[in-house]
Amino acid sequence: MKKLINSPESVVSDALRGMAAAHPGLRVEAEKGIVTRAAGAAGEPTGKVAVLSGGGSGHEPLHAGFVGRGMLAAAVAGPVFTSPVPDTIAAATCAVDAGAGVLHIVKNYTGDILNFTMAAEDCEDEGVKVEQVVVDDDVAVARTEHGPGRRGTGATLFVEKIAGALAEEGAPLAEVAAVARKVNANARSYGVALSSCTTPAKGSPNFTLGEDEIELGIGIHGEPGRERRTLMTAAETAEAMLDAILDDLPEAAGAPVILLVNGLGGTPPVELYIMRAEVERVLGERGITVARSLVGNYVTSLDMAGCTLTLCRADEELLRLWDAPVDTPSLRWGC
Amino acid sequence: MKKLINSPESVVSDALRGMAAAHPGLRVEAEKGIVTRAAGAAGEPTGKVAVLSGGGSGHEPLHAGFVGRGMLAAAVAGPVFTSPVPDTIAAATCAVDAGAGVLHIVKNYTGDILNFTMAAEDCEDEGVKVEQVVVDDDVAVARTEHGPGRRGTGATLFVEKIAGALAEEGAPLAEVAAVARKVNANARSYGVALSSCTTPAKGSPNFTLGEDEIELGIGIHGEPGRERRTLMTAAETAEAMLDAILDDLPEAAGAPVILLVNGLGGTPPVELYIMRAEVERVLGERGITVARSLVGNYVTSLDMAGCTLTLCRADEELLRLWDAPVDTPSLRWGC
Repeated sequence: MKKLINSPESVVSDALRGMAAAHPGLRVEAEKGIVTRAAGAAGEPTGKVAVLSGGGSGHEPLHAGFVGRGMLAAAVAGPVFTSPVPDTIAAATCAVDAGAGVLHIVKNYTGDILNFTMAAEDCEDEGVKVEQVVVDDDVAVARTEHGPGRRGTGATLFVEKIAGALAEEGAPLAEVAAVARKVNANARSYGVALSSCTTPAKGSPNFTLGEDEIELGIGIHGEPGRERRTLMTAAETAEAMLDAILDDLPEAAGAPVILLVNGLGGTPPVELYIMRAEVERVLGERGITVARSLVGNYVTSLDMAGCTLTLCRADEELLRLWDAPVDTPSLRWGC
Repeated sequence: MKKLINSPESVVSDALRGMAAAHPGLRVEAEKGIVTRAAGAAGEPTGKVAVLSGGGSGHEPLHAGFVGRGMLAAAVAGPVFTSPVPDTIAAATCAVDAGAGVLHIVKNYTGDILNFTMAAEDCEDEGVKVEQVVVDDDVAVARTEHGPGRRGTGATLFVEKIAGALAEEGAPLAEVAAVARKVNANARSYGVALSSCTTPAKGSPNFTLGEDEIELGIGIHGEPGRERRTLMTAAETAEAMLDAILDDLPEAAGAPVILLVNGLGGTPPVELYIMRAEVERVLGERGITVARSLVGNYVTSLDMAGCTLTLCRADEELLRLWDAPVDTPSLRWGC
């Protein structure tokens, strides 16, 4: 295992110390894994709904990089690829409640759902209103009646941005939760890997791929994919990924979308921009307009090489909230 | 070679098509490799000095990601790790000259110096005033009387930001060039690699490192480093890197610095933040205050795993220009 770390045990707290040093707009409790807004201009919301997210670490800048005005009030960071414990989630929730309640944005993994649900119950006992919104955008997992259902991946960023914008405007908790669910309902993601990630604790790759292989439909925790193919061109890769997404989002034809071309940690900007070009081409051929887009490392999977694509069908409301000012370490505009 | 590309030949033009799709604020001539500002609010400077940079591709977002208000007027992208030709540099220079002259920011590599110098001569013949500033911040290369001298790496970003800010204020060419040289004189960089990059044309790594090896003093084109060691902790790595930098910048003690913790393409945010934490600790122990900092992929080396550190000793003038509004795809604040 080759990583710039001190020890597998201290990866999360060390990285959070680095975020604290890098971003004065954050208040970071590195040992607890709680990140909130520092007081001041881009400071804590007052009398507004607080939007909170969190989950296992290893996906940076998700979630702590999105704490700030117009987006999250707090992020809770668990160990690598492991949910934070209910006590920590509850502590962060109570800390940021400004009287209007707290929205929990939770990626759909069994441990996260369990722990956020328990934390919410504890908070409700303390008189803090909590709504939970589950993100389950990964079309690589089939929708079934049973089982944990689809994984939450890149759409989390869209849900956090748009719900955070509505909360910043002072909307009540039910409305903020409703727009978050609307984003999730209109968003789909799909990922490919050229290499596996290596978790610091295990020290070896979760899976291995041959020199000429690409894995389609991977998860952001090194979960195996849907199928393995011989390495394709960027054009073919974009087509395969968008086929999977659009098969599941047929109403997208003709509607504008918000697009995320997301690096998984080990893939450089030059390749992500090549994928961005191919996505533009394929969507254009299918009559879909990209209204807004992001390209970069937003929801990583440690050092995995590869990328995910997320499309969110957007109406005027979602575009307006997407464009609203945001001032966080990793998303910043209009502020 | 595992990359999300279409072909080695089309890497640069495909990536530029992606930048065009992603960033409406850019005007991109993908085949020529010229990126300028789109007209409009964040559009072309009028009557102001135009700041232009460029060089081989493979370092994205450098340089095209820094085109926009408060920074570059134009970026010229050559083939991967290869200087653009003089004709292209000259065409871009003439296109962005608004009557006040053009500053060329050139990383210190033989091909770049040669081609930018020839382009400048062609422009002067056309009546366009050009000043050239050379960036040579990499302390891994010894200062010698002979030879090409030190390589230009991370400090290029600082020079582009600060010169761009002064140009935006309407300062004359001589002053913009002077502040650019001042930044370079006060900046030092050092890089380490955990893996080599693989150029698309060659298809195999430039060098190979053992499973437990780290290479110190590498360049951003896969140039070999100063020494090879057994993999160290992030703390030890930061100490070794800052030793090399501070040995060359002794006056830094006590002065505030602007810091760049830069990913080389294959290293994820979580590791860069761990390095950021260790840099904060080491500099703190040596009485150096980090006044401003960036953490992320800014000056990459294709898919290389590793990072570079850049420190720039900053007085009030440099901090003021650093803080000035900037609106580019990859740096944006205050706009």
